[in-house]
Amino acid sequence: MDFQDHYANMAVVVRHTAQREPVVEVLEAIYSRHAMRDYAPEMPVTETIQSLVKAAVQAPSAMNLQPWAFAVVRGRDRLTSISDPAKAHLLRTMAAGSPLSSLRERLADPSFDIFYGAPVLIIICATSSEAGASEDCALAAQNLMLAAHSEGLGTCWIGLARPWLNEAMAKEELRLPTGYAPVAPIILGYPKGQPEVHPRQDPEIVWIGE
Amino acid sequence: MDFQDHYANMAVVVRHTAQREPVVEVLEAIYSRHAMRDYAPEMPVTETIQSLVKAAVQAPSAMNLQPWAFAVVRGRDRLTSISDPAKAHLLRTMAAGSPLSSLRERLADPSFDIFYGAPVLIIICATSSEAGASEDCALAAQNLMLAAHSEGLGTCWIGLARPWLNEAMAKEELRLPTGYAPVAPIILGYPKGQPEVHPRQDPEIVWIGE
Repeated sequence: MDFQDHYANMAVVVRHTAQREPVVEVLEAIYSRHAMRDYAPEMPVTETIQSLVKAAVQAPSAMNLQPWAFAVVRGRDRLTSISDPAKAHLLRTMAAGSPLSSLRERLADPSFDIFYGAPVLIIICATSSEAGASEDCALAAQNLMLAAHSEGLGTCWIGLARPWLNEAMAKEELRLPTGYAPVAPIILGYPKGQPEVHPRQDPEIVWIGE
Repeated sequence: MDFQDHYANMAVVVRHTAQREPVVEVLEAIYSRHAMRDYAPEMPVTETIQSLVKAAVQAPSAMNLQPWAFAVVRGRDRLTSISDPAKAHLLRTMAAGSPLSSLRERLADPSFDIFYGAPVLIIICATSSEAGASEDCALAAQNLMLAAHSEGLGTCWIGLARPWLNEAMAKEELRLPTGYAPVAPIILGYPKGQPEVHPRQDPEIVWIGE
């Protein structure tokens, strides 16, 4: 049994066992977590979502300011009510030559759901305009995605949602304080299909000294 | 290098250090990793640093652009040559009322080393000006810090270094391309003292729908 099979089996076990201790090793989690874009409709329970948020905020933050808040959007109708205006907003505002322009056709397709059928969207918001607050939210996001993975849940950071979520109208709809800046829109749910595995380039390392 | 190789390398490194047992479980790593500001002088071997960078880039990135590069600065003299101008830069540029102003006295102290005696500084740089590149670097940073922790190594994101590292003069000294933007200056080394444990506030969760 190779590593992939081992993990696939483990995910099944986790899904069928309510609220148990995590079993995934940290390096294994880092290497085996991939973006999930195919979800079962089952809603993770509230306690699971709370525990993921709690894991998220174990991340460090500049000056320990913990400049984050979490909006948890649940239910397909609610997610569609974000996906549709987010797509329209991108099509209106996309800069020529942006990497996003390759997505123009998909964004114009009314059947394209930028949240891929996930039942939950967790939006990590920066609650401070101090330098580094959005990076602190991203640190929390990686914790959240790894913790979700360790519990057999899939995630994907949906950058496509970010521009619209930062519009005043969106914050009003979601009843988010105007001073909050959505940074990390992360979908969450139980995987239905296989995750997308994107190979990594060899990272560039510049060695300085010694 | 795949996960198995990575893990095999780790085992070798761990055997050669009498620091402590490795932390292997992902939630345990997320909860037990704290900022380390007290380091032994021993230099982590090159292979260990490479394996941490490899773990870092397993993070997701917007449009899979992988907009990151890693500068690895080694040796106390080199780190001091960054700490000193970084402190002077902060004192020159600090805005009134910034949370940093509580650090004014320490920054003016010539004996204060913003890198806390660590033997290594890894600077994760955004290689793209696309929106989200700095957050992608932060995702990689959290992977790197968790992977280091799992191997018994301490880390701390030194936000104090970031403003100076983004100055043209600093990039020239470090021979970084002018288009690279240092995002995450992370010190690395074997812990000497205990980590600093900062309690977390209960995170704010806004529930929307269902």
